[in-house]
Amino acid sequence: MSSVNYTLLCDFYELTMANGYFELGKGDEIAYFDVFFRKVPDGGGFAIAAGLEQVIEYIKTLKFTEEDIAFLREKGIFSEGFLNYLKTFRFTGDIYAVPEGTPIFPGEPIMTVRAPSIEAQFIETFILLCLNHQSLIATKANRVVRAAQGRPVAEFGSRRAQGADGAVLGARAAYIGGCAATACTISDRDYAIPATGTMAHSWVQMFDTEYDAFVSYCKMYPNNATLLVDTYDVLKSGVPNAIRAFREVLLPLGIKKCGIRLDSGDITYLSKKARKMLDEAGFTECKIVVSNSLDENIIRDIIHQGAAIDSFGVGERLITAKSQPVFGGVYKLVAKEEGGEVIPKIKISENPEKITNPHFKKVYRIYDKETGKASADLLCVHDEVLDENRPLSIFDPVETWKTKEFTNYSLRELLVPIFKGGECVYKTPPISEIQSYCRAEIETLWDEVKRFENPHRYYVDLSEKLWNIKMRLLKNGGKK
Amino acid sequence: MSSVNYTLLCDFYELTMANGYFELGKGDEIAYFDVFFRKVPDGGGFAIAAGLEQVIEYIKTLKFTEEDIAFLREKGIFSEGFLNYLKTFRFTGDIYAVPEGTPIFPGEPIMTVRAPSIEAQFIETFILLCLNHQSLIATKANRVVRAAQGRPVAEFGSRRAQGADGAVLGARAAYIGGCAATACTISDRDYAIPATGTMAHSWVQMFDTEYDAFVSYCKMYPNNATLLVDTYDVLKSGVPNAIRAFREVLLPLGIKKCGIRLDSGDITYLSKKARKMLDEAGFTECKIVVSNSLDENIIRDIIHQGAAIDSFGVGERLITAKSQPVFGGVYKLVAKEEGGEVIPKIKISENPEKITNPHFKKVYRIYDKETGKASADLLCVHDEVLDENRPLSIFDPVETWKTKEFTNYSLRELLVPIFKGGECVYKTPPISEIQSYCRAEIETLWDEVKRFENPHRYYVDLSEKLWNIKMRLLKNGGKK
Repeated sequence: MSSVNYTLLCDFYELTMANGYFELGKGDEIAYFDVFFRKVPDGGGFAIAAGLEQVIEYIKTLKFTEEDIAFLREKGIFSEGFLNYLKTFRFTGDIYAVPEGTPIFPGEPIMTVRAPSIEAQFIETFILLCLNHQSLIATKANRVVRAAQGRPVAEFGSRRAQGADGAVLGARAAYIGGCAATACTISDRDYAIPATGTMAHSWVQMFDTEYDAFVSYCKMYPNNATLLVDTYDVLKSGVPNAIRAFREVLLPLGIKKCGIRLDSGDITYLSKKARKMLDEAGFTECKIVVSNSLDENIIRDIIHQGAAIDSFGVGERLITAKSQPVFGGVYKLVAKEEGGEVIPKIKISENPEKITNPHFKKVYRIYDKETGKASADLLCVHDEVLDENRPLSIFDPVETWKTKEFTNYSLRELLVPIFKGGECVYKTPPISEIQSYCRAEIETLWDEVKRFENPHRYYVDLSEKLWNIKMRLLKNGGKK
Repeated sequence: MSSVNYTLLCDFYELTMANGYFELGKGDEIAYFDVFFRKVPDGGGFAIAAGLEQVIEYIKTLKFTEEDIAFLREKGIFSEGFLNYLKTFRFTGDIYAVPEGTPIFPGEPIMTVRAPSIEAQFIETFILLCLNHQSLIATKANRVVRAAQGRPVAEFGSRRAQGADGAVLGARAAYIGGCAATACTISDRDYAIPATGTMAHSWVQMFDTEYDAFVSYCKMYPNNATLLVDTYDVLKSGVPNAIRAFREVLLPLGIKKCGIRLDSGDITYLSKKARKMLDEAGFTECKIVVSNSLDENIIRDIIHQGAAIDSFGVGERLITAKSQPVFGGVYKLVAKEEGGEVIPKIKISENPEKITNPHFKKVYRIYDKETGKASADLLCVHDEVLDENRPLSIFDPVETWKTKEFTNYSLRELLVPIFKGGECVYKTPPISEIQSYCRAEIETLWDEVKRFENPHRYYVDLSEKLWNIKMRLLKNGGKK
């Protein structure tokens, strides 16, 4: 996937603004942009950051080709000086971001870009696209995986994904969120996400009888024989034929590990009936895999009803995050430098939730030392330093009389350097480490934050210094 | 985009099944697969076919590289014979499909693949991915465009798309569905979708005052000055500053064409107020563009309320088809050849809507000659020939007593040859022609089918011959 040059995957206004900054001599002014999101999808208590690796690849490969520049020249609105500048365009700034797999919360920066204004503005669309897409899918996958309560979940949705990257990188994000595997082969080759699969209905239909199809498959893949039993009739035909095939092919080989897959009908009912038939036939080790338009709500419900299911294949509702398919990350100017000084900037709006947290910031996550649990995130001005040895008091940024005191706590800075002066200073961990890190980080969240319905709102507060700056900007209509 | 080799973007089971067919000597058996969908998204009356061009590119570039084969060998489950076969693997079969931009209906084939079973099975995932994604977005875009009642709609959603292809090809599909433009620059370069844009809030924030920002932009782009007026306060600051900038910069140049963009707040109210202010200042030709989480329902509602809007920018809710982000196209075996004879196959299911229409089929669209309107689609067995000069009677496939007679009608075969014997025999029209064709085809639909709520169900019926075959297969549990 990395062979594609996505430089022109930008909103056209990024180019017209860049041309403007260039012509006005504002191109070198240093600007700060934050990526943050406003709402956790599906009413959840937290999201999971993902997509950083693809942002890094993109930044590294940024380059306008001769053809790109010729294409832009034809638009007739860009100056030759600007087009010439684009020939050697590359990213020279700094990027800070939360590592992939980190639980993240509304209103806090998950990435900060500090760069000359043209560069910082130009990379907006692709950064948002990467982080929005993969954070969306990682967050959804994690809901599904938690609903499955330890039963493995495989991502099966390529065919319903929104484009090739939706499938390939969606599988990557789903794995970060906790999925055990994917059906998408290329995601295994390129991103080391384990690929898995069973059979399609067409396999069954290609043989004269379902029994023939099952016997052939068992002979072919005796160590991995998961048979799809719903092509004709699950209980009257599919399960009995599967049992017969297991008995005739696998038993003589001493193999007891096998499986069936249910892909339609009343999954809960059928799984219980099938379990009973398999057990009575002696195939107690036969796993029951189910698929068919599953999501976290259906999985919770069928487990609640006592369905006999060992693992789940989840397709369209995971790969598109169907119930809420948009992760609303935005990219907003929060400061610029004037004479070496960082000047905070704010975006005011008639919609209060669209008002930004100004300034170049750092984000501390506050952990309770006794429980190890994350208690709150605190946004500070970039040069503030907190001392873990002194008590810390935080307050709600809207209802400021609500305060919280910490004495026995530790701090962690969430934003880590990714690029410095245009050079990448971060090494993406192997994908399996990202998955483990994600699992461990979610362990630091209180159960109340992890609730599916009406979770506790995790605190994301502003330091007093930052809060005062924001209030001053709001009162002055955005002026310092 | 075409430089990417997507051969391994397949479900892993397609490879395990292929290996099975190869080892069992079934790889050369000719199989027929249909692509069809079951439900129009958003409760609409029709969908729009799109994505064929990308299927064609994929089929043409199918090739397993040495690295792909080495990767598969490591899985330890594929035979050397099969891996060797993959070295020269290419598609040698036939593909029929409805042209892009065609209105399509549930239950009818929109593509039929006839090929040796390994090949036909292998291409399932990518074909579905392409057709599902682009048909989804084209269908959604068309709803949005129809809601806008002639006002141009631009697709602005790249940053919220589900991956890069979601953005780039989503813009292509949105254009097919009737959008006038996209914000995505690379879609212009690669697919000739006109790219357009205004400015971001950051442009305004980069200047000391909103007025300075507007004046600079008007000087920079006097012929295309659309100013974003909601950074601080639309009516108190944004619109007055825009009027001042237009007056000082554009009027001396004799330019009356200009625009403002509203991106937050009560769009209906603000647009009416802004229109009044602009008109009173003499800028009656100033266009008002709006954005901010729009979709077809909001657009219908704000037009209904008399909002003064000239064009729409539609982002996340279009590029992800947010209200229903899955187009459920499936790929099902419908026949195979045995001794030169085409044997129909069916997939039965506990869910009646999952039962397939068997056999190698053709699809006729029946037009009423008097009105020019499309009256019904009729699925026939591949070798049936209908004579337009004889009366035609069709019947509902479930409630068979419901019949309809045609006397003055014309027929059109919807599925056209795309590949014959592995060679592409189809030339994709220029994208602007696809858009025009789509618009014209939608004109042939009755208003009742185009209703947003509770549309009339368009008839998709089976010929008597095909219906009899289906009933026989159902009664025999799938056996002929």
